[in-house]
Amino acid sequence: MSALVLGHMNPDTDSIISAIAACELYKKRGFDVKACAQGDPTPESKFVLEKFGLTAPEVVKDVTGKEVFLVDYSDLAQAPAGLADATVKGIVDHHKLGDVTTSSPLECWIWPVGCTATVLTSMYEFYGVEIPRGLAGGMLCAILSDTVIFKSPTCTEADKKAVAKLAKIAGVNDVEALGIEMFKVKSAVDGTPMRDLVNRDYKDFNMNGNKVGIGQLEVVDLSILDKVKAGLQAEIEKVKAEGGRHSVFLLLTDIMKEGSEMLIASDDPSVVEKAFGAKPQGNSVWLNGVMSRKKQVVPNFEKAFK
Amino acid sequence: MSALVLGHMNPDTDSIISAIAACELYKKRGFDVKACAQGDPTPESKFVLEKFGLTAPEVVKDVTGKEVFLVDYSDLAQAPAGLADATVKGIVDHHKLGDVTTSSPLECWIWPVGCTATVLTSMYEFYGVEIPRGLAGGMLCAILSDTVIFKSPTCTEADKKAVAKLAKIAGVNDVEALGIEMFKVKSAVDGTPMRDLVNRDYKDFNMNGNKVGIGQLEVVDLSILDKVKAGLQAEIEKVKAEGGRHSVFLLLTDIMKEGSEMLIASDDPSVVEKAFGAKPQGNSVWLNGVMSRKKQVVPNFEKAFK
Repeated sequence: MSALVLGHMNPDTDSIISAIAACELYKKRGFDVKACAQGDPTPESKFVLEKFGLTAPEVVKDVTGKEVFLVDYSDLAQAPAGLADATVKGIVDHHKLGDVTTSSPLECWIWPVGCTATVLTSMYEFYGVEIPRGLAGGMLCAILSDTVIFKSPTCTEADKKAVAKLAKIAGVNDVEALGIEMFKVKSAVDGTPMRDLVNRDYKDFNMNGNKVGIGQLEVVDLSILDKVKAGLQAEIEKVKAEGGRHSVFLLLTDIMKEGSEMLIASDDPSVVEKAFGAKPQGNSVWLNGVMSRKKQVVPNFEKAFK
Repeated sequence: MSALVLGHMNPDTDSIISAIAACELYKKRGFDVKACAQGDPTPESKFVLEKFGLTAPEVVKDVTGKEVFLVDYSDLAQAPAGLADATVKGIVDHHKLGDVTTSSPLECWIWPVGCTATVLTSMYEFYGVEIPRGLAGGMLCAILSDTVIFKSPTCTEADKKAVAKLAKIAGVNDVEALGIEMFKVKSAVDGTPMRDLVNRDYKDFNMNGNKVGIGQLEVVDLSILDKVKAGLQAEIEKVKAEGGRHSVFLLLTDIMKEGSEMLIASDDPSVVEKAFGAKPQGNSVWLNGVMSRKKQVVPNFEKAFK
């Protein structure tokens, strides 16, 4: 039985592409593995897969009894059903260390860089395995997506170096143009159900015993979202109520203006001011310079919830 | 303020040497760090430090408010006081993934190999940093100690390759002779208080809500321990009672016969038979072929406690 290589819930481009990239590398190292994902690719991920001739990973929602390699997360809240009855063989990630534990030794590559695909680029180098041309294009896009074309504070020198290397392999001359083309696809919201927009890049966290959901929509111009903002607010209220959550926050990130409007649904909206020192106006607040959920939002809320 | 690089409680040779080795590498990479340990070196570790001209790390028992890099563990039960109020910047390890979590991204190198010093040997290679001659000797000994001179089932090809590389740098021609010399030092028990013998390589685990302590003494011939066995049994009963533990087990490992006698102090000794399928005789049981706490003892007990 093949071990499954899979990313987090509501897979983003890094989660999809890094599952493919890790799987490819594990195969070359002699493991019997299969790339999977916990959901269908987003429009952005579809664009990347098609552009570079890659196949979307099989969707798997339960891993009971399986061997698994995790990419792009180490939190139980983002894991598929049955993880407690699965054997975690390895983790490749670039987030904080979550609450996944194991009974046996495993292989973890977790680095404080902007993207899991960056860690994987180094792993390919370490093992002396060549990255196939199409996969390099996908990994390049994953890094551009996670680092918001190098604008996010999560972006490191290692990410830039990886992009330079991958662009060469993939034959991409204008990396920024590719990034903007991809973010334009990501910005499209017309005809998409509200729930899908909220879920596009959504994660639940356990903050001092409180279930807190944080989603993010990145657009090239915030005005694109004007006509859906009221609908999104109503939808996060629903998500909050359904899951017994303390709060649901949705970041509407303008990648050109480099900041985020945060929509708020919370049992205690004062946590927002505690976390960011900015007073919400109604159900939302503008957070200047805030681009990264991981680096600028989650740690602030974790402190505020303590 | 320097970040502290430190191993687990009751430091063994790997924990001591890997703290020094990781510290040296982090320094070369530009971090401001200091090698520490949670206790004084054992006789075995002292022998290694002296033989290769290395300095014992400073003893630190509380890390409140500090930045820390962990080596050789990722379990809160093996962490110093104040870890919850420290910032974990990185982990180098070769055990199962424990329950340490972080609020921010960090750097983890955790591999399923026989020794943390093996992972560090690869890290030096990855970063293109030369291992100093004395340090290479220390790392070599750490691997020989953890893998019981390659006899433990935890030993991998990576460990053997690392030893070959380190022996060359350190100028050690007969690796096995060095290993046996070291294990003879480790075998000496005369004049050592019982508590020190129990603690020499002792770890607490949380097994399905039960606090379970497992210690190990490795000797070149089990008969060395005949005269202290009754004292050790009485001592683990005390350790069990003092800490509100469910069980304390002490493995007396004969590295030449390749097996362990396990002394038992438990609220429910039937877990031993459940875990190993062997019936204890009085307070002890012989486990043929069992050399590794990590690979052959902890996983079996974890299943038995489920």
